[in-house]
Amino acid sequence: MDAYDAPVADMMAALRLAGLDELLALPAFAGAHADAETVETLVGEFGRLASEVIAPTDRVGDTVGSKLDVTTGDVTAPPGFTAAYRQYVDGGWAALAVPAEHGGGGFPTVVGLAVQELFTTANLALSLNPMLTHAAVELLARWGDQRQRSVFLPKLLTGEWCGTMDLTEPDAGSDVGALRTRAEQDAGGVWRLTGSKIFITWGEHDMAGNIVHMVLARTPGSAPGTKGLSLFAVPKFLVNDDGSLGARNAMRAAKLEEKVGIHASPTCVMEFDGAVGELVGEEHAGMRGMFTMMNAARVSIGLQGLAVAERAWQQSLAYARERRQGRAAGAPASAGRAAIIEHPDVQRMLLTMRVSSLAMRHLLYLTAAQSDVASAHPDEAVRARAAALSELLTPVAKAWPTDLGVAAASLGVQVHGGMGYVEETGIAQRWRDSRIGPIYEGTNGIQAIDLATRKLPRDGGAAMLRLLDEIDATVSELGKDDEAWGPTYEALAAGADALRTATLWVLARPAEEIADVLAGATSYLELVGVVVGGWLLARSGDAAASNFYATELLPRAAGLLTPVTAGAARLHGLT
Amino acid sequence: MDAYDAPVADMMAALRLAGLDELLALPAFAGAHADAETVETLVGEFGRLASEVIAPTDRVGDTVGSKLDVTTGDVTAPPGFTAAYRQYVDGGWAALAVPAEHGGGGFPTVVGLAVQELFTTANLALSLNPMLTHAAVELLARWGDQRQRSVFLPKLLTGEWCGTMDLTEPDAGSDVGALRTRAEQDAGGVWRLTGSKIFITWGEHDMAGNIVHMVLARTPGSAPGTKGLSLFAVPKFLVNDDGSLGARNAMRAAKLEEKVGIHASPTCVMEFDGAVGELVGEEHAGMRGMFTMMNAARVSIGLQGLAVAERAWQQSLAYARERRQGRAAGAPASAGRAAIIEHPDVQRMLLTMRVSSLAMRHLLYLTAAQSDVASAHPDEAVRARAAALSELLTPVAKAWPTDLGVAAASLGVQVHGGMGYVEETGIAQRWRDSRIGPIYEGTNGIQAIDLATRKLPRDGGAAMLRLLDEIDATVSELGKDDEAWGPTYEALAAGADALRTATLWVLARPAEEIADVLAGATSYLELVGVVVGGWLLARSGDAAASNFYATELLPRAAGLLTPVTAGAARLHGLT
Repeated sequence: MDAYDAPVADMMAALRLAGLDELLALPAFAGAHADAETVETLVGEFGRLASEVIAPTDRVGDTVGSKLDVTTGDVTAPPGFTAAYRQYVDGGWAALAVPAEHGGGGFPTVVGLAVQELFTTANLALSLNPMLTHAAVELLARWGDQRQRSVFLPKLLTGEWCGTMDLTEPDAGSDVGALRTRAEQDAGGVWRLTGSKIFITWGEHDMAGNIVHMVLARTPGSAPGTKGLSLFAVPKFLVNDDGSLGARNAMRAAKLEEKVGIHASPTCVMEFDGAVGELVGEEHAGMRGMFTMMNAARVSIGLQGLAVAERAWQQSLAYARERRQGRAAGAPASAGRAAIIEHPDVQRMLLTMRVSSLAMRHLLYLTAAQSDVASAHPDEAVRARAAALSELLTPVAKAWPTDLGVAAASLGVQVHGGMGYVEETGIAQRWRDSRIGPIYEGTNGIQAIDLATRKLPRDGGAAMLRLLDEIDATVSELGKDDEAWGPTYEALAAGADALRTATLWVLARPAEEIADVLAGATSYLELVGVVVGGWLLARSGDAAASNFYATELLPRAAGLLTPVTAGAARLHGLT
Repeated sequence: MDAYDAPVADMMAALRLAGLDELLALPAFAGAHADAETVETLVGEFGRLASEVIAPTDRVGDTVGSKLDVTTGDVTAPPGFTAAYRQYVDGGWAALAVPAEHGGGGFPTVVGLAVQELFTTANLALSLNPMLTHAAVELLARWGDQRQRSVFLPKLLTGEWCGTMDLTEPDAGSDVGALRTRAEQDAGGVWRLTGSKIFITWGEHDMAGNIVHMVLARTPGSAPGTKGLSLFAVPKFLVNDDGSLGARNAMRAAKLEEKVGIHASPTCVMEFDGAVGELVGEEHAGMRGMFTMMNAARVSIGLQGLAVAERAWQQSLAYARERRQGRAAGAPASAGRAAIIEHPDVQRMLLTMRVSSLAMRHLLYLTAAQSDVASAHPDEAVRARAAALSELLTPVAKAWPTDLGVAAASLGVQVHGGMGYVEETGIAQRWRDSRIGPIYEGTNGIQAIDLATRKLPRDGGAAMLRLLDEIDATVSELGKDDEAWGPTYEALAAGADALRTATLWVLARPAEEIADVLAGATSYLELVGVVVGGWLLARSGDAAASNFYATELLPRAAGLLTPVTAGAARLHGLT
């Protein structure tokens, strides 16, 4: 029941809808020497690794978890993790979408995202490790000095070494500017870091030769808040100029958090006790670097919503085909017991999971592909439009799929009935694992604020209004007389209207009415997600999936317009 | 953060809106010698016990859990459970709403439900034990013979002994008719039960002198399916006619399930190995008895949705007042850090939890109070109308609150941010505990089928159409010109329209279109819940709560009409 099949056809359809062929034809990606067929082969090949090698480690990861030896500070990954990870590293998968100039495969990031989808769906907790490493690669490639690019990058690129992101402190979560970890230069001019970081994902483990921590810290005399923060690369083992390893650095994992899910991923409290660090970029410019990492991570976190939904759908479909209870609707009393998939309400749940996954994938791939266009297209105007769209959709691509992922995993539990609430079937793990998505890398509430108060208004709404025009064009193409697309036509037209009305309302708020926008920001983000998801499904050509979405999920759009525009006065009843 | 305050004022408001004063004035409840003030005193008194004695056991129950000794079959409840439970028994709380003729306190069941709310919110896992005991009491009071009423009832009534409900088998969950446990008479005419039951809540433990299992089994030569089932009382210790305990019966707990939540509640696999049972009611009439138990239990399970939402709201409110992150909306850059409750999106989450709790409580208390009217009112026509309404609302009162409970607990996790995903704060327990509600005592999908295909159509829709007329009357009373109730007026009018349209559509389906009804049954149930919840909040007089509900939750009604009426053809895309 716990098997995972790589959905290669679905993925290729989403890659093509997102513009894979056009992307691969761009000069910037010529180094990959690839067409869509090459990509399909790659996806199929990594799909086998994901299904056959990585996915089987997922359950033991949940039940055994990573373990900390408090006397040594060593963390041991669950059985089988290192072996599975080695195959990923040895296969050269980690660097697929890293630009050729840094030694990577030169593929568009959206192709890297497809590989990442397979890894994440196979084992979410393990996938966090390469995800963070990749973010460290992007950061060092952009902001690192020559030494950092030459000693850290080559090993991080392949995954031989791992990277982490060390921001949060006990009193500084979403509010990064409040952090207190200090970095001070010793007599020899070497930066020494002292302080505690919490919630450090894969902060310590035994799967790689070295771990490079990207740490935000405060240097002497710097301004309060985020402006006083600087970024440091703090390796577990010091690295000599020739790339060889030196002494163990003065830092250790002091505790692992006991979490609801993703048990295999060690969430560390890291203690820095005068640890040697290297300044990355300029002093006081740490946030700029961190934003590079966080932006890259947001689409990856959104992908986790897709991952739990896809995996839960596959497991629940298999279960529903096997489990027999009661008679099918309309069957005579003499009929034998039906597989529960014969029951309309079970079909409704399974299809909701299914179309949620499809819609999420389209949104995520589009967001990534547009960022590829933004960085690689020869035409500046095209680049600018793509950047605007990708940046507009990034908070939506983080928040909407992670919320839908929780909902889909919950439906998976429900399809399993009483067996869903016991750990034995494994579906409960999906639900527990799913719940972190809406929280980390900026809570979904913060994504909504980013969308409604920054990404939407910063160009006067131009990017969103262009997107709405495209949606209207799709509605017109569908036409109201094509019976095969009737439900989609009706619901998408209504959804687009609601989104346009909501958008114009948000854009029309003056600065002093910011609280009114904030009070409806989460509903606005959900509205964008549900309508854009419906639009992409309509364009996918899959009428059955699109029409089901149009009758089950897209009608929610109408109910979201009211909370978007209801203002903040209604919040004053809170005592 | 984990403290629980009994919401006495909210509860009294809900009791009064449900008709407490009128109920207590009925001759049937004269034996309670009580008015609403007496009830308030009782609720306050039990509220203290719940807050001070029961609630503090909740966390240890989750972390330690109940333990099975596999060699003896003995189950040990978590530390502190037996002592807390004793205070409940010794205080005489268990029998409060049992009719005086059976030795109880003679209060309406809705007053018993209020006490149960306090217990359930304080410790959900522990509350399942008295809940099931109470269901056994109802069953034996109605269907037991004189011996059973004299030897079992007095001890079960007080909670000195506990009761359980043994239906499910590995291959017979929702499909009870498929069960295989056998009951055969030995040479002396004694019934002997042999078989395995699974998912038996509190099936074995060390908190009471005896445990009386209500077991469904198949007698020799009986028909297949549910018609061949009979009901047996199977005590852990045999009971002599004078009420004294005899030998240990041939049954034992063989395994405890590892569950996502409610860890303190031992979910047992029970093995019966020729265990002595007493036939309750007639042979082959077992389902009738079980339905007595299951009906009583449905409102109690709905109550669990309220319980997790109320507790999660209290915890999250306390956390949001203490935790400081970022500046408040519109505050100048120089402002200090704000408690997160200052952020509009956090307020939105907290208020959603708050009004969900209020609306659920109103629905649950109304459903229970109408069942009291149905059994106790002197006027037959009033009784019949109340019975119809209570029965119509029972599946809604089970399913809607349990779904809302999961959603509210999830919001609680979200308010806590990263701290919500670690077990330390305790809010994660709410979310894990909440997820069983939509599953047991008939999955929420089965409740929806019951509503749409049985409870709604059986009187041609008369009970629902009467309810809709009442809602319309409330809309008219609010009037469109009263600014204080503007949002409520608008949303309730629209919601009532949607519900009426959906209801008429469901009622108009001919028998051969049953699959079309089933495909939208879950959405129909949610539509009933969200509109009736909004109606009751409007009638509660709390304009702030009602208007917030009207702008955040009630607008969903519009989006539910489409899935209710979209039919089953849209499900055919499932491969």
